[in-house]
Amino acid sequence: MNTENETILGIDPGFARCGYGVIGKKQHMPVAYIWGCIETTPKTGDTSQRLLAIFESIENLIITYRPIGLACEKLFFSRNTTTAMQVSEAKGVIILAAAKYNIPVFEYTPKQVKLAVTGSGMADKQQIQMMITRLLRLSDIPKPDDAADGLALALCHLNWMRT
Amino acid sequence: MNTENETILGIDPGFARCGYGVIGKKQHMPVAYIWGCIETTPKTGDTSQRLLAIFESIENLIITYRPIGLACEKLFFSRNTTTAMQVSEAKGVIILAAAKYNIPVFEYTPKQVKLAVTGSGMADKQQIQMMITRLLRLSDIPKPDDAADGLALALCHLNWMRT
Repeated sequence: MNTENETILGIDPGFARCGYGVIGKKQHMPVAYIWGCIETTPKTGDTSQRLLAIFESIENLIITYRPIGLACEKLFFSRNTTTAMQVSEAKGVIILAAAKYNIPVFEYTPKQVKLAVTGSGMADKQQIQMMITRLLRLSDIPKPDDAADGLALALCHLNWMRT
Repeated sequence: MNTENETILGIDPGFARCGYGVIGKKQHMPVAYIWGCIETTPKTGDTSQRLLAIFESIENLIITYRPIGLACEKLFFSRNTTTAMQVSEAKGVIILAAAKYNIPVFEYTPKQVKLAVTGSGMADKQQIQMMITRLLRLSDIPKPDDAADGLALALCHLNWMRT
């Protein structure tokens, strides 16, 4: 493990909204560098153009922050295969961006993220967001929700690296 | 429509096996340039490396044959979402390769392909393969099946362009 660089890129994958959060460590404490949401709409273009927009945004984050790992939510779908397929297409290009720069990808279930961030696999959205805010010493709850999910995934992986 | 270049790349998307076929026109008749199957296995690497292998293979086909369109099978899944998600991840990187080179993507259902190639939406695999062999004046049925599917998708799009 590279102790000098512990930068992690967390991704909450989506086709229309893709949350991200980049965290690292400063004096042994987790710190957030950037967070936000990549939004694509029919105005962004057709499916090809929307996937390209997601890929290029992830690529820019990788080039700028040089993460040593990408933490992504493990997807589960029981019903709506149309949504499952669209989100998976987006996830494919996210994983590809990591592969292009030789960055390992780690997948975590929502339960694993909750457990890592709050200590409870049953925590609700509000509890997770409050813990993220506290752990990263932010002045406000990170917005939008997708960005908070990106930060939570990154924190989950940082925790996994430690253990 | 560019009448000088009518090269089409047909793709039968898959994660472990991805069929392709490149066709064009010579003296107003369809002609096959290349066909085959991109295979990825756990030996190829993890999910990231397998998606990268698919992306790079499609990119190589695009750079070599300069298609004006990419025809891809429209996916339907009713049950197995795990398979649906893996194939969709592969499809995401295939569409991305097209987007990178500004090549429009066209999706066709299996029924549309059957209808375009054989004149019947109810044709079986053998009938389709025989028609592909005849239409492209090949000496043998193109192998493997995935490659034949790639050629069929390209032929379907060539037919659609004509009408």
